Amino acid sequence: MKLAIYGYGNLGRGVECAAQQNSDTELIGVFTRRNPSDVKTLFNTPVYSADDILDFKGKIDVLIICGGSATDLPKMTPALACDFNVVDSFDTHAKIPQHFEFVDAAAYSNDTTALISCGWDPGMFSLNRLYASAILPDGKDYTFWGRGVSQGHSDAIRRIDGVIDARQYTVPVEETLKAVRKGETPELTTRQKHIRECYVVAAEGADKEEITRQIKTMPNYFADYDTTVTFISLEEMKRDHSEIPHGGVVIRTGKTGACGEHSNTIEYSLKLDSNPEFTASALVAFARAIYRMNERGIYGCKTVFDIAPADLSPLSGDELRATML
Amino acid sequence: MKLAIYGYGNLGRGVECAAQQNSDTELIGVFTRRNPSDVKTLFNTPVYSADDILDFKGKIDVLIICGGSATDLPKMTPALACDFNVVDSFDTHAKIPQHFEFVDAAAYSNDTTALISCGWDPGMFSLNRLYASAILPDGKDYTFWGRGVSQGHSDAIRRIDGVIDARQYTVPVEETLKAVRKGETPELTTRQKHIRECYVVAAEGADKEEITRQIKTMPNYFADYDTTVTFISLEEMKRDHSEIPHGGVVIRTGKTGACGEHSNTIEYSLKLDSNPEFTASALVAFARAIYRMNERGIYGCKTVFDIAPADLSPLSGDELRATML
Repeated sequence: MKLAIYGYGNLGRGVECAAQQNSDTELIGVFTRRNPSDVKTLFNTPVYSADDILDFKGKIDVLIICGGSATDLPKMTPALACDFNVVDSFDTHAKIPQHFEFVDAAAYSNDTTALISCGWDPGMFSLNRLYASAILPDGKDYTFWGRGVSQGHSDAIRRIDGVIDARQYTVPVEETLKAVRKGETPELTTRQKHIRECYVVAAEGADKEEITRQIKTMPNYFADYDTTVTFISLEEMKRDHSEIPHGGVVIRTGKTGACGEHSNTIEYSLKLDSNPEFTASALVAFARAIYRMNERGIYGCKTVFDIAPADLSPLSGDELRATML
Repeated sequence: MKLAIYGYGNLGRGVECAAQQNSDTELIGVFTRRNPSDVKTLFNTPVYSADDILDFKGKIDVLIICGGSATDLPKMTPALACDFNVVDSFDTHAKIPQHFEFVDAAAYSNDTTALISCGWDPGMFSLNRLYASAILPDGKDYTFWGRGVSQGHSDAIRRIDGVIDARQYTVPVEETLKAVRKGETPELTTRQKHIRECYVVAAEGADKEEITRQIKTMPNYFADYDTTVTFISLEEMKRDHSEIPHGGVVIRTGKTGACGEHSNTIEYSLKLDSNPEFTASALVAFARAIYRMNERGIYGCKTVFDIAPADLSPLSGDELRATML
């Protein structure tokens, strides 16, 4: 399977690493909007200009698009799906139906196969919500995120006057998690589910009280949460907060039995040292499925819900049944 | 979707309950090898003789076969797959490839669709082993079962002279579980993974020391485990051990990054008040997929690995993308 990477940030580097771990993949190149000679890849993967991507039509089995969901992917994925099988990690949940529609139209009319919104949420967490709700229809599910770095919330703090750098961790509220794990099915407010921990480097002479006030009252991002703000030095930021861990849990509790007398709890959890590398690893596994589906003449836009799990594995059906079932 | 149940024990009753929770299913009947007039169903589902099953050809969309793996399913599933779409929970892992082959031949030649080895292990645990290993190829996975009742081990104790009743619980070794959850990847012996707790009702005057010795030294079942034996009264057995809980966890830890410097842990866990009712709930969800695949002209034997998750849900693709992705 010949893969290529479109966009070379944390996620693109993760895909480059993941491709090394899969012996059935070959990495054709990295496509960048920067000057290719300014981009140094981790494993000496060749770097090309994004402008030259069409020269590679027919030479790439699946193009993994590693752009941002806010402005990159809504344009890139439908455009590139006209000429390539593509996989993206579009994660703006509310806009998925629209993104799906545009990518589906592009892929269908060009006999390509596309997968959008792959990763862990959307992605593996979505799959677990679906499996659990299909098996236990009389139930309720919960998704908790963290402990992990939220890039969007970190960026929001960095835009405040007097802030040099910031890192925000999303943390599930421990007591709530315990209650849900025990099979309780409470109605929860935003505040009852997650805490937001902020680590901030302030400029010399900046008004820390004002920065704290601005963070804690920021609508959507922080106002509805219990938020802690801790000021640290630039050295502490580099030493203690340079990694991008994340994770979380999806829990569903459902009743079974003639009178719903039995309670059953399904929990899926992730503890990731590297959020982008895990997402990248999922993209590569699902790229395998997209390539196979395209070879079978299955075109259009797909999501993780449409992929038969066997297609993710390099093993044959016989091998899977003998070793994993 | 018109379902029927073939075999009416704990699992069959569980399917009858699960069918009530799914508004798109209609339960045509229960087929039994016993005298139908001796069988009383939970929801007044009609009971028919297994001998009359062929009278219902064309009237059942999916037949859920609720027999035992040791002797029932190897015969029943291939035979019934000649005339019906079928789902079973065949769980003798080592014999799955052979069972698959027989059922596949029967289903292919008769344009039916069959699913074998559905439930939680094999079933949801298998799916999680597959997903996790496809995403994190450079890793190691572990499956722990329990705390829960093992019917096979309970039966083995009941066959010992002087034993009136017995219940065996399989319990993961807590320290091992903790180590694996922390991302350690030890090589484990059988003894390091699970403990076997046995509760035994002995006949009056029976030699308890001899019963204990026979249990603890029983090859395959107990000899390789740390086993505890507790003698209890028949009343205690009825009061404290009448339920059939089970569960367990599948954990995979894998490395990502340019030098494998990041560790990522995926955990899937089940806590089930009722093992047969949860298995039955999975059978009904997967029956929905088998029915849809048959309608699309996809024939032959499938496993959970071959089922696109979207086919398990009564929701449409649009609804799934809008609400669960």
